[in-house]
Amino acid sequence: MDSLAELVDTLPAGVVATDPATLENYRYDWSRDTGAGTPVAVVRAEDASQVQAAVRWAAAYGIPVVPRGAGSGLSGGASAVDGGIVLSLERMRAIEIDTDCQVAVVEPGAFNAEVKAASKEHGLWYPPDPSSFEICSIGGNVATNAGGLCCVKYGVTTDYVLGLDVVLADGTLITLGGKRIKDVAGLSLVKLFVGSEGTLGIVTRAILRLVPQPLPPATLVASFESVVAAAEAVVAVRRTLRPSMMELMDRATINAVEDFAPRGLDRTAGALLVVQSDAPGEARAAEIAVVEAACEAAGATEVAVTDDPEEGEMFVAARRAAFPAVEARGALLLEDVGAAVPVLPDLLAAVEEIARVHDVEIPTVAHAGDGNTHPIIVYTPGDADSERRARAAFDDILRAAIRLGGTITGEHGVGRTKKAALPDQLGEDVMALTRRIKDALDPAGILNPGAVL
Amino acid sequence: MDSLAELVDTLPAGVVATDPATLENYRYDWSRDTGAGTPVAVVRAEDASQVQAAVRWAAAYGIPVVPRGAGSGLSGGASAVDGGIVLSLERMRAIEIDTDCQVAVVEPGAFNAEVKAASKEHGLWYPPDPSSFEICSIGGNVATNAGGLCCVKYGVTTDYVLGLDVVLADGTLITLGGKRIKDVAGLSLVKLFVGSEGTLGIVTRAILRLVPQPLPPATLVASFESVVAAAEAVVAVRRTLRPSMMELMDRATINAVEDFAPRGLDRTAGALLVVQSDAPGEARAAEIAVVEAACEAAGATEVAVTDDPEEGEMFVAARRAAFPAVEARGALLLEDVGAAVPVLPDLLAAVEEIARVHDVEIPTVAHAGDGNTHPIIVYTPGDADSERRARAAFDDILRAAIRLGGTITGEHGVGRTKKAALPDQLGEDVMALTRRIKDALDPAGILNPGAVL
Ligand SMILES: Cc1cc2nc3c(=O)[nH]c(=O)nc-3n(C[C@H](O)[C@H](O)[C@H](O)COP(=O)(O)OP(=O)(O)OC[C@H]3O[C@@H](n4cnc5c(N)ncnc54)[C@H](O)[C@@H]3O)c2cc1C
Ligand SMILES: Cc1cc2nc3c(=O)[nH]c(=O)nc-3n(C[C@H](O)[C@H](O)[C@H](O)COP(=O)(O)OP(=O)(O)OC[C@H]3O[C@@H](n4cnc5c(N)ncnc54)[C@H](O)[C@@H]3O)c2cc1C
Repeated sequence: MDSLAELVDTLPAGVVATDPATLENYRYDWSRDTGAGTPVAVVRAEDASQVQAAVRWAAAYGIPVVPRGAGSGLSGGASAVDGGIVLSLERMRAIEIDTDCQVAVVEPGAFNAEVKAASKEHGLWYPPDPSSFEICSIGGNVATNAGGLCCVKYGVTTDYVLGLDVVLADGTLITLGGKRIKDVAGLSLVKLFVGSEGTLGIVTRAILRLVPQPLPPATLVASFESVVAAAEAVVAVRRTLRPSMMELMDRATINAVEDFAPRGLDRTAGALLVVQSDAPGEARAAEIAVVEAACEAAGATEVAVTDDPEEGEMFVAARRAAFPAVEARGALLLEDVGAAVPVLPDLLAAVEEIARVHDVEIPTVAHAGDGNTHPIIVYTPGDADSERRARAAFDDILRAAIRLGGTITGEHGVGRTKKAALPDQLGEDVMALTRRIKDALDPAGILNPGAVL
Repeated sequence: MDSLAELVDTLPAGVVATDPATLENYRYDWSRDTGAGTPVAVVRAEDASQVQAAVRWAAAYGIPVVPRGAGSGLSGGASAVDGGIVLSLERMRAIEIDTDCQVAVVEPGAFNAEVKAASKEHGLWYPPDPSSFEICSIGGNVATNAGGLCCVKYGVTTDYVLGLDVVLADGTLITLGGKRIKDVAGLSLVKLFVGSEGTLGIVTRAILRLVPQPLPPATLVASFESVVAAAEAVVAVRRTLRPSMMELMDRATINAVEDFAPRGLDRTAGALLVVQSDAPGEARAAEIAVVEAACEAAGATEVAVTDDPEEGEMFVAARRAAFPAVEARGALLLEDVGAAVPVLPDLLAAVEEIARVHDVEIPTVAHAGDGNTHPIIVYTPGDADSERRARAAFDDILRAAIRLGGTITGEHGVGRTKKAALPDQLGEDVMALTRRIKDALDPAGILNPGAVL
């Protein structure tokens, strides 16, 4: 391919890879989307001008560009496309902390955990904390508007993005926003790019708002006989307060996590809630008391509270280990359905019913305080019937979420694996509007084609 | 005009007004933009279907539509356009509080203060609090992404909008988002409409996130010899904490406010800072102590602290009265420039210098904790020289903000009065992108033409 030789020539040595092993390495994200293609090249850009050069080249030849951060995505958003290039930002990872402005200026390839660590050195905190924080990039977080555990109190990625540099579909580099906290000059373009999953532009720099470090939290762990009872406690708590974390694990997850790395969780519990409060002074005890009372009213079989942050972190780490732990049991289809908090018990009951009907194992974890759940559908790879039942359950869960007025994705993004259900949630008019915006920004459709739309 | 008769016929009696007195009443917003035209009709819609009917009619005849909330805007965003209609949402003001979901479902004409009051009945709080909260509508707040006093800690309007119903330029009614807290299905369209100043669609319903009521705050008032000294205290405080309010008034404002409604403020002070903390328990005293130390280090001549919320509110009310109080002194050109917090002293010094150079009175207030300032340029209406100097100062302040890496508008919006400076801030590439989005959503350009672009 002549055009490919031109790409290789345009960029410095080592930036463009075309060897089969590298191409294979960049086909999948963590979801291992079976529809992933094979790219013709992987571009590992070292700066924004190289991103521009690659995009200009792709625009000239009409070649698909799949932006890629750390590949931890769970919906095939970074799946390679046959004949396209993968544009990886993994080498662009500078982090600069501006303590006076309380912002981090970050290249997209920097890991979330690296931004947190750099901020912490200055007594500052970057709140968004996907469970994958040690293996996901800020560019990916921005592109998916990543959530996490603390967002029940502290919000999601979009709440912390003050500015972005973006390479558009024709290779133009634009700068949006800046270090100022308030700015309404022109349309909210920063916010439009956040969550656009690489379909509107490629993020080459982000200015992130930092806040003072929170206090070490107190942790409450409650056991319930059923996930629905646990969810009812969540609904009751959320009527009056916002804890700094409110996570749920069902029995199957608890057992998977214990098998994976034993921590002494109660394997017999139907569900565990892990709740934290980082409120200062007496407010903390008051919050924990509200949570405790709600858990007991919902029928908790055991409630334990600890002020020791390390002991608390042990439970949170168990929760974070859910996906890798369940992955050890088979292949996975990962859900990310959500609903308004009061609907959480119904949503979880619907998932249990779907598991029963299709005879599939569906361990479930949830950022329960936000109504965002992750049913994890397990199947046996190579077993056609198991796979068929898993896919049927996957679709049924998406449908159940929509029926309950919820969403097919609370934080992972639509990507390629949930795309078919998007029109059912948004409706044709919103889909048409989405397409008009996509066409306005990427008329040739070269940016992450096949994702979202 | 035959088409006008058709509009009158299409809608129920009393919805369309064409009498000269009404037309005159709907020409201006609070900025009294001298470029405002005269509409051919005022449509006071009673529900979304009437908004749709009016927009469909306007689309059919290519007639400009200026959406209007309560007309408290400060940048001519709702100035009438010659030959166009004003589409007022003032009659659509239902408010429904969903306590389980902690959201308010609100029609656009409801006042901000009404939403706050309805929420409070259920122990809930809608934080965004423009100084105009008693005279501005939620639709206007959404369209301008309104800020206010509490946003230094609690964020701006966009942080609280979970869902919107929007009538598009062809009359289509779409529903975006909902009561769920987390949802990344598709592009961030809710966020795109927030702050779009009526140029992309007309908001007919908003779903707003509510939070628990905050604690009654402690208030600190500090006097300084100069605005720059006060600003330096702000910079120092914001390096480590986020008070729940941090407002600044300069000497001219203090005196205008005292003339308007005497409250015993220190007329000799060069500047006052009004700072609040609503932190619970000991954290409050700790925050106030940090603020006090910073004020003293910056040379405060007096610092007073009160735990009495009513006494504190007296100072905040004085701050809120700034615009009406200064208005009593002449005609105004209102600025809304902002910058990163550490740049605040330079920005305020630049404003003082501009006032001196052009020999204009420019009382200044600021949401100082956010780096957002409101220099209020006073001139004598009818005095051509005074007006010329005021306009020169207006433009110089916009330029100074851009030179300092700031913004021409932190919360009021671009509207018509700041439009000329927008390309200087955003640059041609971002303007082009903005135009592409505008064209995609409103190809005939009937929605609020002349605003922003
Ligand atoms: C164990 C585990 C736990 C997880 N927990 C959470 C969680 O709690 N919350 C949560 O939100 N997610 C979670 N995720 C999902 C995933 O980590 C997030 O979606 C993350 O934001 C993806 O970042 P990434 O760098 O890996 O992006 P990738 O997977 O590389 O890409 C994700 C998407 O972003 C686009 N993209 C990446 N970089 C850029 C860029 N610079 N410019 C434009 N587009 C770009 C890609 O095209 C793709 O569409 C989890 C994943 C794993 C494996
Ligand atoms: C004394 C005073 C103090 C103020 N203090 C603040 C402050 O602290 N913070 C702040 O942010 N602002 C402040 N403002 C400015 C003003 O109140 C805000 O901009 C407010 O959001 C405007 O609301 P409104 O209903 O009056 O809108 P309008 O003035 O009627 O319209 C404002 C803009 O929104 C558009 N619009 C209105 N309704 C809709 C709708 N339903 N759909 C689509 N577009 C619509 C209009 O076309 C226009 O572009 C202040 C104003 C005054 C007079």
